[in-house]
Amino acid sequence: MDIFQVVDTLVCTLRVSGLDHCSLRVLRDAKGKLQVATDPVGVRPGNWVFTVNGSAGRYAMGDAKILTDLTIGGIIDDWDSDAAPV
Amino acid sequence: MDIFQVVDTLVCTLRVSGLDHCSLRVLRDAKGKLQVATDPVGVRPGNWVFTVNGSAGRYAMGDAKILTDLTIGGIIDDWDSDAAPV
Amino acid sequence: MDIFQVVDTLVCTLRVSGLDHCSLRVLRDAKGKLQVATDPVGVRPGNWVFTVNGSAGRYAMGDAKILTDLTIGGIIDDWDSDAAPV
Amino acid sequence: MDIFQVVDTLVCTLRVSGLDHCSLRVLRDAKGKLQVATDPVGVRPGNWVFTVNGSAGRYAMGDAKILTDLTIGGIIDDWDSDAAPV
Amino acid sequence: MDIFQVVDTLVCTLRVSGLDHCSLRVLRDAKGKLQVATDPVGVRPGNWVFTVNGSAGRYAMGDAKILTDLTIGGIIDDWDSDAAPV
Repeated sequence: MDIFQVVDTLVCTLRVSGLDHCSLRVLRDAKGKLQVATDPVGVRPGNWVFTVNGSAGRYAMGDAKILTDLTIGGIIDDWDSDAAPV
Repeated sequence: MDIFQVVDTLVCTLRVSGLDHCSLRVLRDAKGKLQVATDPVGVRPGNWVFTVNGSAGRYAMGDAKILTDLTIGGIIDDWDSDAAPV
Repeated sequence: MDIFQVVDTLVCTLRVSGLDHCSLRVLRDAKGKLQVATDPVGVRPGNWVFTVNGSAGRYAMGDAKILTDLTIGGIIDDWDSDAAPV
Repeated sequence: MDIFQVVDTLVCTLRVSGLDHCSLRVLRDAKGKLQVATDPVGVRPGNWVFTVNGSAGRYAMGDAKILTDLTIGGIIDDWDSDAAPV
Repeated sequence: MDIFQVVDTLVCTLRVSGLDHCSLRVLRDAKGKLQVATDPVGVRPGNWVFTVNGSAGRYAMGDAKILTDLTIGGIIDDWDSDAAPV
């Protein structure tokens, strides 16, 4: 499971039907690489989160028909971003 | 899920039977790395998209017999490519 | 399977239900990259461990309903960290 | 799906039973990294191909008992290698 | 499938039950990165091997209950390590 900071919500009107009605978030890792994840938790920009990938990420949405490959698994209580390596 | 810009359509006459009749697109990420994805959405060169990998990518084609490992999940409405990190 | 050193326990109050009651550890690889893994073994900071990813990682928890993508598979008896390449 | 150039056939007498009788090819990506893939298509050194990974790669062999994680999905008709980024 | 050179056997007394009685090998790729793999073939330090990852790696052990994510698929007959790119 990877550690990311939430950047923003992804606005995406035209999407495949298996991702209808899902909240999509743009995340950034310690190196600056961006990823998109589904969000069953309800995060805000600036939160540090960890993510679950692959089939476990689908199950983590509570509905395996949601066609994600990356889901936010939780919000980290207290993360010292300065300690995160680059 | 990853973020890419659509480069072009991939022309590929000789392919395995599980990918017959699929539109294949060449995508480029923020670092310039190229990937190939199946396209159930109908994208155009220059569009910014996000992709779904693994088994979720097969289901996203609407037919799990399509043997892709990467499928375009949607077109991003408004993407500031200058903000994308290298 | 990858080799990591255990850094600390991840404190994460708000998480998806499939990860309730799991011990989560922050791990660091030879390049300094951090990952989060579930821990069925009982590790301590400083231990060198190897991890199992994907669906095998779920099964390694002894309960495939645990929605992890990375599980600690064992503690390495004697690891010469100086020999680990950067 | 990734883009590679075919380097050579891999000669490998001693292998697990799930890969008996498979043609194995050594592929090189734009950065020079080598990978091994099963070949249901019949490629020649120098061809540019795209590959399918994971379980889709097994199905692409036409026999899911073949224990590959990477299968050549097709030969690209016309690839400008100079355009491939490093 | 990836190409590695066998470094050594991994000594790991405390491990999850799904990996009991498995031979674990430390492998090094062309860039020096280390990985751990299960070994159904019987390799020796210095051998060049290719590996199978994911669920195919479990099946390659001949027993899908073995909770590996990387299995040695075969020993390469004749590998020119100088030709391996860094």
